Amino acid sequence: MVIRMNCDKATVEQVTKLVLESLQQYSSIKTEVPVGVSARHIHLNKNDLVRLFGEGYVLHQLKPLSQPGQYAAEETVDITGPKGKIPKVRILGPERSATQVEITATDMRKLGINAPVRTSGDLKGTPGITITGPKGEITIDEGVIISDRHIHMTPADAVAYGVADGQKVKLLAEGEKGGILHNVIIRVSDKYALDCHIDTDDASAFLIRQGQVLHIIK
Amino acid sequence: MVIRMNCDKATVEQVTKLVLESLQQYSSIKTEVPVGVSARHIHLNKNDLVRLFGEGYVLHQLKPLSQPGQYAAEETVDITGPKGKIPKVRILGPERSATQVEITATDMRKLGINAPVRTSGDLKGTPGITITGPKGEITIDEGVIISDRHIHMTPADAVAYGVADGQKVKLLAEGEKGGILHNVIIRVSDKYALDCHIDTDDASAFLIRQGQVLHIIK
Repeated sequence: MVIRMNCDKATVEQVTKLVLESLQQYSSIKTEVPVGVSARHIHLNKNDLVRLFGEGYVLHQLKPLSQPGQYAAEETVDITGPKGKIPKVRILGPERSATQVEITATDMRKLGINAPVRTSGDLKGTPGITITGPKGEITIDEGVIISDRHIHMTPADAVAYGVADGQKVKLLAEGEKGGILHNVIIRVSDKYALDCHIDTDDASAFLIRQGQVLHIIK
Repeated sequence: MVIRMNCDKATVEQVTKLVLESLQQYSSIKTEVPVGVSARHIHLNKNDLVRLFGEGYVLHQLKPLSQPGQYAAEETVDITGPKGKIPKVRILGPERSATQVEITATDMRKLGINAPVRTSGDLKGTPGITITGPKGEITIDEGVIISDRHIHMTPADAVAYGVADGQKVKLLAEGEKGGILHNVIIRVSDKYALDCHIDTDDASAFLIRQGQVLHIIK
């Protein structure tokens, strides 16, 4: 298709704006999502939990998280990289099949570790770190990531928002230091609850508060 | 003007894309700007310099900054808020008429201070802080800000980029954790050199490196 138009940019923008506004009237697609800001945290596998806290140790729930069955534990560990240590990193439960440490770019500079942006569970080739608990210290070979930006939702939510599992969307944050976050992955499962996860660096840059509403842009 | 069109969103987007691409061919407006990431820092007035470093003290230049005549000093001070202290905050020279502390939202949480987003020099009603130097300690009543995102440029640059002093633009950062920064103020003066200033929170959130090129979007 070749379309030739002879008009200035302002006119094009005006036409586009009117057409999109008009289309939006007929759309019932939802765009607003609540935001959950993820601070640095760690998931432990059973074996590493034993090595750090002792045989038979059971994590204590501090508070439930937005995703069903997930919780912040009372327990914390210290993590140490080549350049420095970050104390009291919160453990999230329950135990997982692989130990995973989720940090921010700000943390990376303090630790001296160069972690890639990854989806939770995709740990191949990621750097390791030293983890210290009350009963022991371990050094994992891999498992340190910057978590990708993502939105958990149910299949019904996916229909309501007009998105599909694995799709990348953008998120608009309003405010004096607002902007648009790119590469936000949609994750759909009937085990999920609607929540959008960004890290503390994203929240600090855009002055986003826990529970604030962001807008999905496709 | 009322325009009625009967077509789907994909067609509208296709038309818009083709028109904008076509317009761009005839445009010589520049969009690329180099980025300078501003870490937390402090500007001192003469009086406060004396109270912190002693009578007759002269700052020592560590390295020049992108703006002509401005420099990072060898000297640092500690800053302390109700909740905590940040040591070794870099002083930028030369002295200014008002002492000003530029921090990030990440720093705010550590210090327990709630600073507003402001343009440099606009300090009315901003919070104070305690500053400690080798020869003394002072508590200022106001002067702590989160600096707004801004782009320094000459009048000739303003013509080349098609922008005006005080105009707000957006900045596109590419990459895995990229996005768009809103509310970036254009500052035009023949005393300036072209440089775009964002803080370490913005840089960390978007994984932006010093000197990386960002794109101005209007």
